[in-house]
Amino acid sequence: MHVGIIGGTGPLGQGLALRLAAAGSSVTIGSRQADRAAEIVAALHDRWPERALAIDGDTNDQAAARPIVVVATPWDALVPTVRASAEHLGGKVVVSVANALVKQGREVHALVPPRGSMAAAVQAELPASMVAAAGHHLPASELADLEAALEADVLVCSDHAEATEATMALMGSIEGLRPLDAGSMAQATAIEAFTAVLVTINMRYKAHSSLGLTGLGHVPR
Amino acid sequence: MHVGIIGGTGPLGQGLALRLAAAGSSVTIGSRQADRAAEIVAALHDRWPERALAIDGDTNDQAAARPIVVVATPWDALVPTVRASAEHLGGKVVVSVANALVKQGREVHALVPPRGSMAAAVQAELPASMVAAAGHHLPASELADLEAALEADVLVCSDHAEATEATMALMGSIEGLRPLDAGSMAQATAIEAFTAVLVTINMRYKAHSSLGLTGLGHVPR
Repeated sequence: MHVGIIGGTGPLGQGLALRLAAAGSSVTIGSRQADRAAEIVAALHDRWPERALAIDGDTNDQAAARPIVVVATPWDALVPTVRASAEHLGGKVVVSVANALVKQGREVHALVPPRGSMAAAVQAELPASMVAAAGHHLPASELADLEAALEADVLVCSDHAEATEATMALMGSIEGLRPLDAGSMAQATAIEAFTAVLVTINMRYKAHSSLGLTGLGHVPR
Repeated sequence: MHVGIIGGTGPLGQGLALRLAAAGSSVTIGSRQADRAAEIVAALHDRWPERALAIDGDTNDQAAARPIVVVATPWDALVPTVRASAEHLGGKVVVSVANALVKQGREVHALVPPRGSMAAAVQAELPASMVAAAGHHLPASELADLEAALEADVLVCSDHAEATEATMALMGSIEGLRPLDAGSMAQATAIEAFTAVLVTINMRYKAHSSLGLTGLGHVPR
């Protein structure tokens, strides 16, 4: 697969790029400034020189031109960023990994955006695209370490069956991740908000936890 | 411990009563109608005759008179029910296990109550009590089968450290459950809403899944 990651220079975007490339995809990390993306990508190649990862850095528009596109900007930049690249995103599967979170003292709280979720805001901004929400609960630091074994469930939801299917295939290509179909876009509210709980638990327990569901042994990871 | 379960005749209330009694607590299942509670309790004793479980059935007021109280009514009855027993609940730890959920076709959706969560609504109704939210993600059918092995994380949140501590001790007394401190009552919004995601996944995958966070191996279950 050739995947674009709009706003892919942050920890989660970089981690996903690394893992997807390690799984055999070609990845374009996009940024508002192409040279910023190029710098980040150079650092990734420097860290993993023997992996021959097919990652390049470019503008967000170039990332948006790929056949499947992940949007990984900070949540408060998400809507204007996808709007700016909207012409490239029509008819495509767009995966939103953003969470609207705020730090409050010793914990992190979820905001509920006006449309219920950031993914729903992206879908509303891109009516011609097929938006899925996924990947919110992944631990960025573990993703970024290709030697760390992953063990996590990835909840995927969308109002488009094609987006659910493509996103599950994308996430399932990464070793140790088990994609699960969590239903319609209405579920993104709870899925995104739950990230605040995981981050807070990580702060309290000094951990890099991720989501796991028990009792689903019949669904292989 | 002597635990009261207000509105404890539903699947989750019964399951918690069984597991807490199996762990050595005395449990009073409360109902609006004491004879209804007595019937339910008789059926539990009939099903597990050799366990000598210390469970009795009584009014909600009698359940509310116990030193620690769980409220397990359907969500839309929760506030009026605790209001009716408020005189018994001052100064106590009250554990809310309710979720505001609605079935929508082939999935279940979370409602966001006006105060953010059902637990926050209970706390607002009971300013003299110490309310914690916990237990939302537990699979009721597995709880009710004392021969089924449990493996689940129980997220606990509260604005009162004493409530968090007592609720974690209560949940941790049940074999196979790992209580985790998820922070302040603000987290109850996401914790409660996430139940909709788990129930929807259970419907889709024909499972009785529960939450089990990965990457927390240093916190024993």
